[in-house]
Amino acid sequence: MAAEAEAVTEVEEEQVVNPWEVSAGKGGIDYDKLVDQFGCQRLDDALVARVARLTARPPHRFLRRGLFFAHRDLNEILDLYEKGEKFYLYTGRGPSSEALHLGHLIPFMFTKYLQDAFKVPLVIQLTDDEKFLWKNLTVEETKRLARENAKDIIACGFDVERTFIFSDFNYVGGAFYENMVKVARCVTYNKVVGIFGFTPEDHIGKVSFPPVQAVPSFPSSFPHLFSGNDQLRCLIPCAIDQDPYFRMTRDVAPRIGYQKPSLIESRFFPALQGENTKMSASDPNSAIYVTDSAKEIKTKVNKYAFSGGRDSIELHRKLGANLDVDVPIKYLNFFLEDDNELEHIKKEYKEGRMLTGEVKQRLVAVLSELVARHQRARAQVTEEMVDVFMAARPLPNMFG
Amino acid sequence: MAAEAEAVTEVEEEQVVNPWEVSAGKGGIDYDKLVDQFGCQRLDDALVARVARLTARPPHRFLRRGLFFAHRDLNEILDLYEKGEKFYLYTGRGPSSEALHLGHLIPFMFTKYLQDAFKVPLVIQLTDDEKFLWKNLTVEETKRLARENAKDIIACGFDVERTFIFSDFNYVGGAFYENMVKVARCVTYNKVVGIFGFTPEDHIGKVSFPPVQAVPSFPSSFPHLFSGNDQLRCLIPCAIDQDPYFRMTRDVAPRIGYQKPSLIESRFFPALQGENTKMSASDPNSAIYVTDSAKEIKTKVNKYAFSGGRDSIELHRKLGANLDVDVPIKYLNFFLEDDNELEHIKKEYKEGRMLTGEVKQRLVAVLSELVARHQRARAQVTEEMVDVFMAARPLPNMFG
Repeated sequence: MAAEAEAVTEVEEEQVVNPWEVSAGKGGIDYDKLVDQFGCQRLDDALVARVARLTARPPHRFLRRGLFFAHRDLNEILDLYEKGEKFYLYTGRGPSSEALHLGHLIPFMFTKYLQDAFKVPLVIQLTDDEKFLWKNLTVEETKRLARENAKDIIACGFDVERTFIFSDFNYVGGAFYENMVKVARCVTYNKVVGIFGFTPEDHIGKVSFPPVQAVPSFPSSFPHLFSGNDQLRCLIPCAIDQDPYFRMTRDVAPRIGYQKPSLIESRFFPALQGENTKMSASDPNSAIYVTDSAKEIKTKVNKYAFSGGRDSIELHRKLGANLDVDVPIKYLNFFLEDDNELEHIKKEYKEGRMLTGEVKQRLVAVLSELVARHQRARAQVTEEMVDVFMAARPLPNMFG
Repeated sequence: MAAEAEAVTEVEEEQVVNPWEVSAGKGGIDYDKLVDQFGCQRLDDALVARVARLTARPPHRFLRRGLFFAHRDLNEILDLYEKGEKFYLYTGRGPSSEALHLGHLIPFMFTKYLQDAFKVPLVIQLTDDEKFLWKNLTVEETKRLARENAKDIIACGFDVERTFIFSDFNYVGGAFYENMVKVARCVTYNKVVGIFGFTPEDHIGKVSFPPVQAVPSFPSSFPHLFSGNDQLRCLIPCAIDQDPYFRMTRDVAPRIGYQKPSLIESRFFPALQGENTKMSASDPNSAIYVTDSAKEIKTKVNKYAFSGGRDSIELHRKLGANLDVDVPIKYLNFFLEDDNELEHIKKEYKEGRMLTGEVKQRLVAVLSELVARHQRARAQVTEEMVDVFMAARPLPNMFG
């Protein structure tokens, strides 16, 4: 896993989306085009309503607001669930940085909701090997980052009785490795070049990696969890840039006797500077980190969050804000829970009655609370808790 | 490991030697050309004498007769050994068939001699993953074959206090996987295409495999054996067709802080039909198997072993045998221990005083004894012994 729910950069007219590069064409990411190009399905209101009905709880705001907007075979998972058949969840993270930013939290917040709503087990892959292969880090450093990131993930509130977190460097082997090799035998070099855009000058670690991210989709990769349950279905919440891995995985699955994983896929979370720039580790002002203080959040939002408001108060009162490019509104869309308040703010702001400063003030309050809550939760995560979550152990109550 | 000490096939003028294909040009394999092409060193009489001196025992007949004929940095290993520094041995086998033929035994016979002579530990890699990737076998079948082959290997007499046998499907993971990924990051796709001749239509399992065979060269891949001894030198006895793997390995080693492995490399063991044909699993008459009965050995040698003798007794008495193409003489060269008797047979046969039938009779006796001895030893190998040899365990007396 790499660029989960991260933002975008404008490099050229043609939009490019793959796990390591997201560049928008002019005017931002065209998600409709992406759905057609990737061949996934749109997640429509009827499907959202069905999720709500089956789980007997309101849909997550990410669903209500179309932030998770695409899927593959989600309907099939729900058909089986309705008949009493369970599934498991799989998500992950590439541990390339010490502190997560808000975009990194999105798949985990959503996955926690799915785990709670469906009462199903979850496997979380930390691709420390991927980060070793793509970044100039040592093995030890990527393993350390994986463990630090695990603490932030645990702080999202996952149920220890239903969750297995693993690092590739620690867990690859045995049944997991067997599945890696099985997948690798089904995929030609030409195919990975077509899917991922590798070049002949790329090292073979890159060519070898896609099966590593593919095989958590198969329950037989986790004998301590799913032994004797090799046809259990898997649902993968992820950002749309991870779709190439799972297109490959779904192509291979029936050829090795396994079920195709289903997907539920999100839009990207924008950088503070707007949809067409990228949240960058080298520019701390491009993102809000979960380690930021309330003061830093306030400064970043006020100073860097791209505004759709007008140049003068007079013009703003007259024309209203351009919500399509306004970052505070986009952030509130992700993080403000109250639909009515969100609609009210959007209306007032769009019609010029509310000013950028006021919207930003509300956003600072929302983000400060979210980040402070995360920091409190993370401070409670001990090394022992990490050891428990990451132990390859049976989870007897995982469907309970 | 794949085509260890196997024979050759004549496909075209240009000789091709890589781990999966050995085809001779006209007139058989040109070993001199191979040494120059691969860039390894010739194993000369002085070096053989040095091995004998350092180990205080006569050199193995494979050394005396130039059957192990090339090396890489063997002198360096011996320099260190002379100063009291130890090393370890690494060899392996690709378990693609139930029964081994005589060619398969050669690296193991020689490795046992090295283990006994130098009193050093040995790791034996069974590349069940490789056979899954290259042959149309199931994972379960390759794992079963690995275990069966382990019994034949154990029957060669390895010291259980100094020997660790492992199957990739069972052992890959942890420190071993870390080293695989480290190697993979140092090797471009272009590079493996140059070394192994992969095509874009080959599956990525093939592209991913070379690091798997590379990393047993590094002691840190075996923490239960060599923990804290990461610079321990490694010597690899193998057939010359495995050289490409270790050229790659030696290129990568210093870049990831490891020692280059040294090599000692053999010629190919010919098929019964001669140097330019291949021992083939689909033609049981092309090779002597360790499961053959004395009667089968007699029939195969008498009926199929290519003779350098002349068409009539009269002509033979007059011209003598052509030893360069005579398979019984080549086999005796590998397996008849007594140098004087071998010289005598060669002289008598070459000068027409000995007939093909007489040479074959001697060969049948030698092979029958060797195979019967192997069969008796193999019958003694229990499942429990296999479990012990294949347990990832410390070997406290491995240098004792």
